[in-house]
Amino acid sequence: MTRVCVAGAGSIGSLLAAHLARVAEVWVLTRRAEHARALETEGLRISGRADFTARLHATADAAALPDVDLAILACKGTDLEPLAARLEGRLPGATVMTVQNGLGAEEIVAAHGDWPLLSAVTFMSGTRHGDTHVEYVLDTATWIGPYRGTTEDDAWAVADLVASSGLKAEAFADLRPAQWSKLIFNATVNAVAALTELPHDFHFAARERLSDLGHLVRDLMDEGKAVAAAAGVELHDDPWEMNVLATQRGHRHYPSMLEDVEARRPTELELINGSLVREAQRVGVAVPLQTAIYRLVKAKEASYS
Amino acid sequence: MTRVCVAGAGSIGSLLAAHLARVAEVWVLTRRAEHARALETEGLRISGRADFTARLHATADAAALPDVDLAILACKGTDLEPLAARLEGRLPGATVMTVQNGLGAEEIVAAHGDWPLLSAVTFMSGTRHGDTHVEYVLDTATWIGPYRGTTEDDAWAVADLVASSGLKAEAFADLRPAQWSKLIFNATVNAVAALTELPHDFHFAARERLSDLGHLVRDLMDEGKAVAAAAGVELHDDPWEMNVLATQRGHRHYPSMLEDVEARRPTELELINGSLVREAQRVGVAVPLQTAIYRLVKAKEASYS
Repeated sequence: MTRVCVAGAGSIGSLLAAHLARVAEVWVLTRRAEHARALETEGLRISGRADFTARLHATADAAALPDVDLAILACKGTDLEPLAARLEGRLPGATVMTVQNGLGAEEIVAAHGDWPLLSAVTFMSGTRHGDTHVEYVLDTATWIGPYRGTTEDDAWAVADLVASSGLKAEAFADLRPAQWSKLIFNATVNAVAALTELPHDFHFAARERLSDLGHLVRDLMDEGKAVAAAAGVELHDDPWEMNVLATQRGHRHYPSMLEDVEARRPTELELINGSLVREAQRVGVAVPLQTAIYRLVKAKEASYS
Repeated sequence: MTRVCVAGAGSIGSLLAAHLARVAEVWVLTRRAEHARALETEGLRISGRADFTARLHATADAAALPDVDLAILACKGTDLEPLAARLEGRLPGATVMTVQNGLGAEEIVAAHGDWPLLSAVTFMSGTRHGDTHVEYVLDTATWIGPYRGTTEDDAWAVADLVASSGLKAEAFADLRPAQWSKLIFNATVNAVAALTELPHDFHFAARERLSDLGHLVRDLMDEGKAVAAAAGVELHDDPWEMNVLATQRGHRHYPSMLEDVEARRPTELELINGSLVREAQRVGVAVPLQTAIYRLVKAKEASYS
């Protein structure tokens, strides 16, 4: 049986761990010991689009992990560096897969070990109701691609495993087109939500009056698309169409960056907006509006103290 | 003795009313009857940079006002239209002076009567501690200019009256250079504070790192200066220098628009940022960043409901 470590048990990590536990031996690496104890004793309950309780192993001590075939690093981007450091020198047989938002997660992990690496982006979402209960909200796919020392076949092997567990997954020879579509979408929608305190709703697509927010959202996405084009990336999906479709669902989604600023937590700003702005500088494309929202959210974080 | 009506008893109206009551017969027009009763019975206390309690008349009933020589409309911009409507057909002997932020206050009042009109902008500030107590915080000047059916001499007569009461005031033949300096300053500082929840502090002038907010503040002010130039207005003060000076004071000023969004109240966005963006359209100057913050604050107001 395949053995999998899911490191990070927020909503995405928990959704992956619980589902994978149906088809693999799963070890969850948590930050807090009581979280691991609760998972070991109570299991991990999924509600919403699925309804079951998974039995799995959990520990907060990286040294207690057995070697695994696959390690999925599913923490927030802001927690990735310390998490990768905890795994340094461990899991010699593992292929490691990142699923963070933004750009640069793979490089952070690569600096801590020579594991074969896979990249992933996920479009599914969940709501964490506690240490042992996550609601499965959006059942959209996770996309996987090779990064270092891996092939498209390796990506398909993991995608097939994830799909066999009941989640949606697909593999690609090159993940960058999907990664960039999501980057531009997230840089825009997350930051605008964080600044306005609006969930991702109809305002983001409204373009009737001069004051309507959709004009700004579209202009921000156009800047992002110009950067992708200059970087030689042909987008998998048009971020504006993703935005219009998402706002038509009628579901008021709260982007994580909005939840972060409301809880006065550090946001994923640097991996998302910072990456986009720095990449724009590198390829010589002016992104005045993306730079503006990057600086505004940075200042919002400064307002916590 | 000169008779003055101060309509609107927020912090600015209260500071003007209490000081003017030392040199004139003052009638305060309030919105709430209990506010007027409290002012009539307790007087109006000023602390901070001055320390006294003024005795004055107050009423919430515009019909109860005697005719006056001067009426100062000192409410917030969002309250000006209904306030001017309450005075329609009244105070036939009055010169009426507006002191709102932004542009367009005079036109709103002009539509409700043919009084001679003066324009004013004020740089003083106060903190309202209750209906009958206002702290005088910044003792900067109020600037007055002619608008309709008035001359620079009329402006000086009011400036001299205000100065004789203990506040700082000056008159100008043309108020637009000062009004526009304050417009560009407020459009930028108020909106950025409202979006970031930072008070007007050192972050607004910081320009060391790519992510620093001062870059954005300066770019926003440059856009405003381009609009003023295209509109034929030579600014009285450079808004960026105003910004740097204010942030060096070491005093953490909370712009009114930040207080408004924290209390989930309507802001003065339309009179300030809306005026600037529409004026830019009129004179054909592109202001993408000012337009962006205008749309973001508009969306923030939409998040209240």
